[in-house]
Amino acid sequence: MLPVMMTTKITGDFQHWASVGQQRIEARLQTLLPSADLAPQRLHQAMRYAVLGAGKRVRPLLAFAAGELTEAGPGRVALAGGAVELIHAYSLVHDDLPCMDDDVLRRGRPTCHVEFDEATALLVGDALQSLAFQVLAENCLTDDASAQLEMVRLLAAASGSRGMAGGQAIDLAAIGKSLTLPELEFMHIHKTGAIIRAATLLGARCGTALADAELHKLDHFAKCIGLAFQVIDDVLDAEATTATLGKTAGKDAQNNKPTYVSALGVGEARKLATQLHQDALAALDGFGERALRLRQLADFVVMRKF
Amino acid sequence: MLPVMMTTKITGDFQHWASVGQQRIEARLQTLLPSADLAPQRLHQAMRYAVLGAGKRVRPLLAFAAGELTEAGPGRVALAGGAVELIHAYSLVHDDLPCMDDDVLRRGRPTCHVEFDEATALLVGDALQSLAFQVLAENCLTDDASAQLEMVRLLAAASGSRGMAGGQAIDLAAIGKSLTLPELEFMHIHKTGAIIRAATLLGARCGTALADAELHKLDHFAKCIGLAFQVIDDVLDAEATTATLGKTAGKDAQNNKPTYVSALGVGEARKLATQLHQDALAALDGFGERALRLRQLADFVVMRKF
Repeated sequence: MLPVMMTTKITGDFQHWASVGQQRIEARLQTLLPSADLAPQRLHQAMRYAVLGAGKRVRPLLAFAAGELTEAGPGRVALAGGAVELIHAYSLVHDDLPCMDDDVLRRGRPTCHVEFDEATALLVGDALQSLAFQVLAENCLTDDASAQLEMVRLLAAASGSRGMAGGQAIDLAAIGKSLTLPELEFMHIHKTGAIIRAATLLGARCGTALADAELHKLDHFAKCIGLAFQVIDDVLDAEATTATLGKTAGKDAQNNKPTYVSALGVGEARKLATQLHQDALAALDGFGERALRLRQLADFVVMRKF
Repeated sequence: MLPVMMTTKITGDFQHWASVGQQRIEARLQTLLPSADLAPQRLHQAMRYAVLGAGKRVRPLLAFAAGELTEAGPGRVALAGGAVELIHAYSLVHDDLPCMDDDVLRRGRPTCHVEFDEATALLVGDALQSLAFQVLAENCLTDDASAQLEMVRLLAAASGSRGMAGGQAIDLAAIGKSLTLPELEFMHIHKTGAIIRAATLLGARCGTALADAELHKLDHFAKCIGLAFQVIDDVLDAEATTATLGKTAGKDAQNNKPTYVSALGVGEARKLATQLHQDALAALDGFGERALRLRQLADFVVMRKF
């Protein structure tokens, strides 16, 4: 169950929808991941540990919400959203390694390399990435095989050196530096934004194809939400406690990383998140009731407490 | 130029063919990899360092040779073989990391984490894997998009926890143990064999589809060659010098890893390689002249000195 603030926008109805989506993606990930009793067992145990039973599943929820725009079958969206979540999970495992953020706590539990060992955590990330592409390639996600190849391309590009992995590299290079707002934005558009956009576009692509103009609006929505997500992440890292967050709080300052809070202060960072929230909602104008869940997810991203 | 022993089988003609293939794959990799002046520059420099200018390119050569079975266009095979080589290169970068084999020398040069740093090397491997799938998805490798999705699936499965990454995990778990021959074989069929088989099957798939029986023979050829390659690797690691090998020699014994040499001794290991070589050639019976390059590559794998 997604613990969100009750507002006029985030209603019990949304909580129920999100909870159903989370259960659906959890069940799907359970079967996508190799069984823990298949050889090599320890690797499979560690892959399941890294993926299952935790996480807000924001990316699969975005995929489900975007799928509602295009009347996509939820079974297909669960596969696309599952693939994106596997990429996200791999990035967390590698990001927590000693040579990267060197973190010991993730989603309220010991990180993968602490629970298992560094070499296993390295292989877990590697194998989760392969699995994500296997999932996209071996299941029917759309009736058009060429469109499905385009989905593979989209997730690969979002994961690679011009997407998420590139964002991590920019993040590493920024330690100890103060970045300008455009530089911060460039980093986050890659580091977290690329996969959030991919989740949204892949979810939509499981249904009927959108016109280019609609696709452009949806992508702009996802770009704004991705940035808002990061701004709020920075605010929460500065304000929250480790217990609430489920991961080590205050790590950014401790690691001397530039954040929206270090660049703007908490108050202005929250204002920026509000502006991005409004921009995201504006991008959905014209989609009507089909975009209800996307709007509610935008609300959730900005109002979340963890 | 591939420095191989001159035998009745490995002729100047083969050397020329291999040299052309190596140049073709090098040129293709040059353009597949992001330019070093694109941001994030350091990551792109490191990716290019890890992939370009070295390596025997055995996997792409297998793809080219298998492509000759099916009249595949060399431009398409270069893309498929390039994708496989990106996966191979990523696996070497991660394998050399301190938490894995902790090696400082590869292909006659400092390993990626020595030349750059550990975090960059981690991201290099991650981004090379993404790039491999991007290459398979965004280029036309065959006229049938469904067949191309199957190529993505094949490479993903060969890379993942039931393929190469799984083989690495088995390898890690085997340190300090003595394995039986079937256990050693199980490890190597995953660790190196899966990608060698994928290279061969992907190369063939760029051309006209093979009948199931032919595909089965080709796969058996690749399985035998993959194992023979590993047996010879173990022999060379035990016999060769670091200078000849271009990577640290004697590492297996030093790392207390079970090898074909530790299980059988050098003499029996060489006999096993000869048997696998013969099995591989037998699998090609019936393919006629189209399989000339595959036969010559089989000879090369067993007779190579590095």
